[in-house]
Amino acid sequence: MRRVTSPGEARAARRSLGGTVGFVPTMGALHAGHLSLVRRAREENAHVVASIFVNPAQFGPKEDLSAYPRPLERDLELLEKEGVALVLVPEPAAMYAPGFETWVEPGSLAARLEGERRPGHFRGVLTVVAKLLNAVEPDRAYFGQKDAQQAVLIRRMARDLDFASEVVVCPIVRESDGLAMSSRNVYLSAEERKAAPVLARALAAASLAWDAGERRGDALKRVVLTVLASEPLARPDYVSAADADTLEETMGEAPRLLLSTAVRFGATRLLDNVVLPHGTGL
Amino acid sequence: MRRVTSPGEARAARRSLGGTVGFVPTMGALHAGHLSLVRRAREENAHVVASIFVNPAQFGPKEDLSAYPRPLERDLELLEKEGVALVLVPEPAAMYAPGFETWVEPGSLAARLEGERRPGHFRGVLTVVAKLLNAVEPDRAYFGQKDAQQAVLIRRMARDLDFASEVVVCPIVRESDGLAMSSRNVYLSAEERKAAPVLARALAAASLAWDAGERRGDALKRVVLTVLASEPLARPDYVSAADADTLEETMGEAPRLLLSTAVRFGATRLLDNVVLPHGTGL
Repeated sequence: MRRVTSPGEARAARRSLGGTVGFVPTMGALHAGHLSLVRRAREENAHVVASIFVNPAQFGPKEDLSAYPRPLERDLELLEKEGVALVLVPEPAAMYAPGFETWVEPGSLAARLEGERRPGHFRGVLTVVAKLLNAVEPDRAYFGQKDAQQAVLIRRMARDLDFASEVVVCPIVRESDGLAMSSRNVYLSAEERKAAPVLARALAAASLAWDAGERRGDALKRVVLTVLASEPLARPDYVSAADADTLEETMGEAPRLLLSTAVRFGATRLLDNVVLPHGTGL
Repeated sequence: MRRVTSPGEARAARRSLGGTVGFVPTMGALHAGHLSLVRRAREENAHVVASIFVNPAQFGPKEDLSAYPRPLERDLELLEKEGVALVLVPEPAAMYAPGFETWVEPGSLAARLEGERRPGHFRGVLTVVAKLLNAVEPDRAYFGQKDAQQAVLIRRMARDLDFASEVVVCPIVRESDGLAMSSRNVYLSAEERKAAPVLARALAAASLAWDAGERRGDALKRVVLTVLASEPLARPDYVSAADADTLEETMGEAPRLLLSTAVRFGATRLLDNVVLPHGTGL
């Protein structure tokens, strides 16, 4: 596995690979969710390129940029084991040179849910993803459904700005008790960790209601909230039932319904979601 | 010369060309300035790709979008004669699909001069150029120095967002009486056309002052304004002496000085500029 530290080096190394490239951009602190993206990329492409970059531009001033876990050596070992050919690990200065001032700005899709609670977050995400796509020139780029709004926004960006790369969104990978894999799960205390699977249970309950014929967004959200309320450590931030394409909140039926929630456990904020009907994905 | 109508077709056709590609994006109404870009692109690349698209996103609500000249058949003939291999001529709907909402936003470089007078103009320019670079994947993209701020902003975007294409800025091409070539020159009445070369004369006078040792931005601007004042039909909008890299107005010496001006003749607004020392260019 070759390691490079700047977008320019990444492009040169990628071009020397030849053949199709699947790209997995990450912030490191890799877990089984990331590795599922790498495996999918390996299946669908001749080579896999990954990146590890805790992108300052997508953190708010009061967020966990400095605390974000950075187990770099372990991450590199995991990527190497998975057969990654090339990894880009840039310093912030290699991504945001002095005088940097050109941003990719999302529109209305970024106004709700995470975007409403984290001003500037998706501008930072889209800008760094645009930079990485331009540097790595992948045939396909892989993102997890866990960050559903991010995935929808990146796909919209790729369409709007005519990026050549196909955006592939992969299913959520879960712990055995249902908790969606996240690099932020390490922040949870033992007690919070025990409580956290309530997110998955709440969404599963709403999925059962869907299976039983319930299509009203409000009713499905109430099911989620009822289950979340059973866990005293869970403080719901939002529960949303939205059209999976437009991210607009829906009262009635949508072709694909994105049921998503953000819940705080102490200082840690966790996300989870399901797209209905089952097996649809983003 | 092959003609395509969508970014996706352009990408497929460009990839089938093989070899290096030089790209000349235009709004049509081609003149000798555009053709100089095509020739330079042909010299430096195996193939030349051009585009003709009057980009609605870079026109303000009160600007000349509908009046902008569109002599398409003539433009296509000119490009074919110059050996262009591929031309993209999209309809607006092929560039801005329903739900389009992702924009490339410039920063402080866009705040002054043209950007200050044309809110949103450079957002429209950068967004369409980003789309075209992603579609055409050129090795080099060619722009004219006549639109100096645009050229500086596009180069900054390419650097900030890690576009693979090299941005090449080519010298201003002038009529025999000095008037900088522009698609908007056709708007001038016969009387205004006779008056318009005063822009070039004013910049030439300032260049002579530079040659004589004058380095103060204010003094050079005064020379420009004095010559402009000699022409009753010329109504100066601005005269600027700015650092050619930062576009910040400079009172004293800059490594490269961009002396630029926008002047109205009736309803027509013309731009011209010179970069000092002579022979520097952008």
